[in-house]
Amino acid sequence: MARIDAAKKGVDIETVFQDRLGQVAQDTEALLDHLLAPPPVEGERARPARLLDAMRYVGLGGGKRLRPFLVVESAALFEVSRQNSLMAGAALECVHCYSLAHDDLPAMDNDDLRRGRPTAHKAFDEATAILAGDGLLTFAFDILCRPETHSDAEVRLKLVSALARAAGLGGMVGGQMLDLAAEGRFDASPARLGEQEVKVLQAMKTGALLRFGCLAGAILGKAEQSQWKALERYGSALGEAFQIADDLLDLEGDPATVGKATGKDAAAHKATLVGVLGPAAARRRLESLVTEAQSALSPFGGRADVLKAAAQFVATRQA
Amino acid sequence: MARIDAAKKGVDIETVFQDRLGQVAQDTEALLDHLLAPPPVEGERARPARLLDAMRYVGLGGGKRLRPFLVVESAALFEVSRQNSLMAGAALECVHCYSLAHDDLPAMDNDDLRRGRPTAHKAFDEATAILAGDGLLTFAFDILCRPETHSDAEVRLKLVSALARAAGLGGMVGGQMLDLAAEGRFDASPARLGEQEVKVLQAMKTGALLRFGCLAGAILGKAEQSQWKALERYGSALGEAFQIADDLLDLEGDPATVGKATGKDAAAHKATLVGVLGPAAARRRLESLVTEAQSALSPFGGRADVLKAAAQFVATRQA
Repeated sequence: MARIDAAKKGVDIETVFQDRLGQVAQDTEALLDHLLAPPPVEGERARPARLLDAMRYVGLGGGKRLRPFLVVESAALFEVSRQNSLMAGAALECVHCYSLAHDDLPAMDNDDLRRGRPTAHKAFDEATAILAGDGLLTFAFDILCRPETHSDAEVRLKLVSALARAAGLGGMVGGQMLDLAAEGRFDASPARLGEQEVKVLQAMKTGALLRFGCLAGAILGKAEQSQWKALERYGSALGEAFQIADDLLDLEGDPATVGKATGKDAAAHKATLVGVLGPAAARRRLESLVTEAQSALSPFGGRADVLKAAAQFVATRQA
Repeated sequence: MARIDAAKKGVDIETVFQDRLGQVAQDTEALLDHLLAPPPVEGERARPARLLDAMRYVGLGGGKRLRPFLVVESAALFEVSRQNSLMAGAALECVHCYSLAHDDLPAMDNDDLRRGRPTAHKAFDEATAILAGDGLLTFAFDILCRPETHSDAEVRLKLVSALARAAGLGGMVGGQMLDLAAEGRFDASPARLGEQEVKVLQAMKTGALLRFGCLAGAILGKAEQSQWKALERYGSALGEAFQIADDLLDLEGDPATVGKATGKDAAAHKATLVGVLGPAAARRRLESLVTEAQSALSPFGGRADVLKAAAQFVATRQA
């Protein structure tokens, strides 16, 4: 495998990680481009051009594709075929991208800029952005049902079930609601959230999909219980680390590098761990989460080196 | 079975139909009330109260539950357990209800009234209505994955796949986009749609979910190809009939009876078959669709009498 060869040749693991992240991004882009092509598939009557354009605008052309990367790399631990894991990764990315399009809407976070481009409702209009989001969320489940995702129907069904739980009421969507409540959307002076409440909010809003990305590998690979637990521990720590890093970027990052407006959390009184703990303690917490994530993977030995590097990357990224 | 007993006793099939429709509505309400209870299930972190309230507001307390009825009755042709078909019906109803909540949004149809109650964004707020819709759409797939929906994982996966196709880009969401385009949302003077184009639009916007309701019975019951085709023919005719009846109600109905504003189609220059054909020809078309739907069911004999009555009901309903 590429990473073992790389290690043998003494190539830095950080370089290997970046290569593999880039390769997954490229493959995911190509796969989504193919899946979101104009010809309708069986059971579809037509694919209206404007909706398809908007779904492509939201789903293609951007992002690090960290979530598909987590699916591909966690699945590689079990020697799952790359076609299978890219399909599951593409489905997860559809959910992630839909959530961004809806999150950016005027009635939600009201953002004009995303990944350095106009947000969907700016590039199109609000109604189209709503429908494109709805379409991508639905499409994610369509993708997971296809035989190309896994030959075993039971595995595909487990993916659907786990993604629905991660994305829904008790996961991402629930977290978005808690987030709006915490910033005082429904109550002029909401109770300030404590550390534990912020953790739950973020474990739902951001953590659930990242955790699913890691568990998807375990589902695709029919992992044993102990391997499942290891990936769950890794995914949970990674999710929390990701959010702290994101909040630090919002506080201290440069909008040009980050690709979207910064300083919005403080302005909106968002509930963040950086806000609760202060930047210095949050940075220490971030470091210990990286250690936690990496040590969770010890049962996999050197085969998990790229995932370990991913934890480091998530904590120190500048965008 | 109740309907056979009823026939023996000489009870009017219309009465049997109304009883059974009412019973499915009651059972669906109870099931959704149970599924959308506060305690989180496995894989969920918490169920935020405001989101749950909004999802319950959108999903409970209204509607004829025609779609779950179609699932239950088509499944009954194959002696599928009522628990199985009610679960699949509840999932379908979640998709239907989410689509109404998003459709009512200010950026979409901007409706204040739905089933005689304030729409979700009026009862709560826009952000909550968006998230409640997202949550219900996601929840539909969660429901379909559960063992209570069917003991066979392959059957559950087929339901997920068919519902995703019916609800997505090439089905309902696509139809909503075509509908907005036809009313000139993206072009001040859009080309007036012909009969065929309006049929495609409506087969997607309204027809796809009704058709899925009928096919869900065939999936749950592992129907043979010929039975599948019969239910597909029935579902397609029923879907078209439903939409023509809906458009006639909008043109001629009383808002107090219909439970929402009427006369909106003409005001918004909506693309309807009533508009293309005129009310008289549309009414004739409606009658021939009822005949078509009923004759499609002839392979099932008297066992399909209640579904045949449903076709008549759909065409002549006043609300």
